[in-house]
Amino acid sequence: MQNNFTIYNSLSRKKEPFKPLHPPFVGIYVCGPTVYSDPHLGHARPAVTFDILYRYLMHLEYKVRYVRNITDVGHLVNDADEGEDKIERKARLEHLEPMEVVQKYINSYLKNMEQINILHPSIEPRASGHIIEQQQLIEEILKKGYAYEVNGSVYFDVLKYNEKYTYGKLSGRILEDLQSSTRDLEGQDEKRNPYDFALWKKATPEHLMRWPSRWSDGYPGWHLECSAMSIKYLGEVFDIHGGGMDLIFPHHECEIAQSTAAQGKESVRYWMHNNMITINGQKMARSLGNFITLDELFSGNHSLLTQAYSPMTIRFFLMQAHYRSTVDFSNEALQASEKGYQRLMKAVGTLDKIKPSLTSTIDIPALRKKCYEAMDDDLNSPVLLSNLFEGVKYINSLSDGTEKISMADLDSLKSLFSVFVFDILGFKNETDSTGDQKLTSELVKIIINLRQEAKNKKEWAASDKIREDLKNAGIILKDTKEGADWEKA
Amino acid sequence: MQNNFTIYNSLSRKKEPFKPLHPPFVGIYVCGPTVYSDPHLGHARPAVTFDILYRYLMHLEYKVRYVRNITDVGHLVNDADEGEDKIERKARLEHLEPMEVVQKYINSYLKNMEQINILHPSIEPRASGHIIEQQQLIEEILKKGYAYEVNGSVYFDVLKYNEKYTYGKLSGRILEDLQSSTRDLEGQDEKRNPYDFALWKKATPEHLMRWPSRWSDGYPGWHLECSAMSIKYLGEVFDIHGGGMDLIFPHHECEIAQSTAAQGKESVRYWMHNNMITINGQKMARSLGNFITLDELFSGNHSLLTQAYSPMTIRFFLMQAHYRSTVDFSNEALQASEKGYQRLMKAVGTLDKIKPSLTSTIDIPALRKKCYEAMDDDLNSPVLLSNLFEGVKYINSLSDGTEKISMADLDSLKSLFSVFVFDILGFKNETDSTGDQKLTSELVKIIINLRQEAKNKKEWAASDKIREDLKNAGIILKDTKEGADWEKA
Repeated sequence: MQNNFTIYNSLSRKKEPFKPLHPPFVGIYVCGPTVYSDPHLGHARPAVTFDILYRYLMHLEYKVRYVRNITDVGHLVNDADEGEDKIERKARLEHLEPMEVVQKYINSYLKNMEQINILHPSIEPRASGHIIEQQQLIEEILKKGYAYEVNGSVYFDVLKYNEKYTYGKLSGRILEDLQSSTRDLEGQDEKRNPYDFALWKKATPEHLMRWPSRWSDGYPGWHLECSAMSIKYLGEVFDIHGGGMDLIFPHHECEIAQSTAAQGKESVRYWMHNNMITINGQKMARSLGNFITLDELFSGNHSLLTQAYSPMTIRFFLMQAHYRSTVDFSNEALQASEKGYQRLMKAVGTLDKIKPSLTSTIDIPALRKKCYEAMDDDLNSPVLLSNLFEGVKYINSLSDGTEKISMADLDSLKSLFSVFVFDILGFKNETDSTGDQKLTSELVKIIINLRQEAKNKKEWAASDKIREDLKNAGIILKDTKEGADWEKA
Repeated sequence: MQNNFTIYNSLSRKKEPFKPLHPPFVGIYVCGPTVYSDPHLGHARPAVTFDILYRYLMHLEYKVRYVRNITDVGHLVNDADEGEDKIERKARLEHLEPMEVVQKYINSYLKNMEQINILHPSIEPRASGHIIEQQQLIEEILKKGYAYEVNGSVYFDVLKYNEKYTYGKLSGRILEDLQSSTRDLEGQDEKRNPYDFALWKKATPEHLMRWPSRWSDGYPGWHLECSAMSIKYLGEVFDIHGGGMDLIFPHHECEIAQSTAAQGKESVRYWMHNNMITINGQKMARSLGNFITLDELFSGNHSLLTQAYSPMTIRFFLMQAHYRSTVDFSNEALQASEKGYQRLMKAVGTLDKIKPSLTSTIDIPALRKKCYEAMDDDLNSPVLLSNLFEGVKYINSLSDGTEKISMADLDSLKSLFSVFVFDILGFKNETDSTGDQKLTSELVKIIINLRQEAKNKKEWAASDKIREDLKNAGIILKDTKEGADWEKA
């Protein structure tokens, strides 16, 4: 299982050859959504990024176990250790039980992911379904001396951890700086230091989502689930951990601290982070109020949108940038993506009709090599797309006869497009069945009018032939007093 | 919130008026799938039955919390207390982690349910996600004296329970008969009596799915999850519990015993059970090897099938029988359902084109009354369908002018079909987008030929008009040496 795949490791801050721990097996953990609202463009980006990683590793014939979690408890407003749980807050606003909120937004997330043609991960574990595993991890951390209990809550002792390990190695933050910059928030006086973080929080009386523990009736801290569930499903050490760049601090930093404290060693070998979607240069986020949901993009129903954009246009848009670059939202950029996607699909259709010649005037093996080189270079999708558009040019030249291709090269070109466009980049051909129905009705109307003209000229044979042709196509004409009506056979 | 809705309560064995405990709220709990294989026709039946219940109660303006669980742990082969876990067995066969098996079959279940247009329940809780809640329930039952611990396992004490309550009240089984008929299985010697059942099982060393408890590292008994999760999400007493008739004993009988033992009172006010799918008179079940999966039905790819059947044909097929009757599978019956469904949809289309008259010659209020009466009579879907087909006759007579309808009655008829066909029975109009594409291409071909004839006759204006009409419809013609080619605009 040789490969030339390189990954930019956020931990080492450089590209490294990808060497899985136990080939042919690869373990991937990716931070999924906190399910308290409709998914927006910012949710689509990590999903697409790690979908392509998953697809490419499977194409390289690895046996991949891909775990993407669902956060349904413990994620507090402001991402801090004090305040309301994001899901409970929504439950209160919508007059629902918290798990009804969770179910509603899991459904909308999965529906949107399917629309963008994201493959299901191997396992989609939920934080609320792994309370025992999280409690076990807290016990381990307590046993190793890196946590302390206060009033029924348990906090991670960052200072103690930093004596033996390095807190801040992923984000590059230095404890001394954190010390001076962290505000001493009210209600956080339970903590020995302001940068300590909660592993278990005692529930206030009005808090709904709570479980018994030997410390208190309470709930796990937000960072804990990912350590507990990645260890459970991928083992103590696993290959790749992915997520959005905004999660590096504090979330992933705390994950590293938790797993390392409990195990005495780090869990993750390659950290991968996708960059943000910006809008007018600012990060797109629900908390900033400048987000566009995926449903709004698909329907065009948002004041910032000049039209609707299909799920594959969104997928194309996200892949036009490398995953570590920001992507700036604009209608112009999305319209360009729409055109690009359509050009690509049209070429795929044209490719089917190309006839082979005895020899080739174009170099397919070179094109194939460049496509793999792009993917191997830390999933460089924009370079891959530009290579594929070189292929589109070839296809158009072959179609108008200015280039020639041998049978073997034609097969290779077809397989190249099938593999890179559909298997790896995960595009699908979109058909709009509503649009098709409208089109059918308009086409039949044209034919009925032409038949009426024939009848007006008393060309009965022509009129009958049109009726017969339509019947063969599956359309039955009915002559009524008001003219011809029709239905599908 | 007046209603005339009656439910056949399996517990009282008679139809009872439906009076919810806390109107306008209604709580429903339905036993969902054990996710270790592809869903088959037998899974579709409870899903459709309780989907219609859910839809009808919402139509009656109740605020319904509908909980349908997913069994992903504890359900052993042969539905007994000894043997392998169904999911672990499949994991071993497929070389997967048990939770990968769970994820795979949750995905296929939810995909199939969406195809049959089953609404998502409000909450879809998983057994493995509620281990703590199940352990808490065991503690309650132990505290009340209705369970005992042996070697790290905990069993429910049926004899003791039967001293105060009645074990067997739902199934009508009598303990004395059970006593004589239950085999004394090997390995069950831990139990005081063979009809006792496991609440917690100590895991054997090779058992994968296990959690710590004060009794042992182990896993919950199969019946426990439904008691624990229904109490958690619907409260100690709730309105309706549904499931397949095959679950009455032992599963639902044990659920009643657990909840009653823990709470001192019963949880469920109305028990509803759907009957089985039979095939040549025998129950269709994976364990009997005579099942047809839903994917096979949709594709026609099974030796027992003479053709493919669409999801809406399956939905129609299941609704042609009352939910408490058996449904016998046959190609003839499915073909009849296909025709019935298509006739219904065609009438819906025709209804849109009906023109009102000054008076009506048909009695729409009477038809509406009969439709509600059918639903109110314990969800009598076959009677409702026959009423709707009376409506179809009206529509056809209105269309050919042999009957007349006033504007008010026409609005009422349209609303009746919209409510009963789509909202309550949950049909949707199926369109075949592949078929549409083929149709488009054939229609355009007819038009191109007609244009060619015009050109042959040098009717240039006619030829240009056809090109213009096509362009307005969204089809661009390109004249090439080989004739006209076309593409969508």
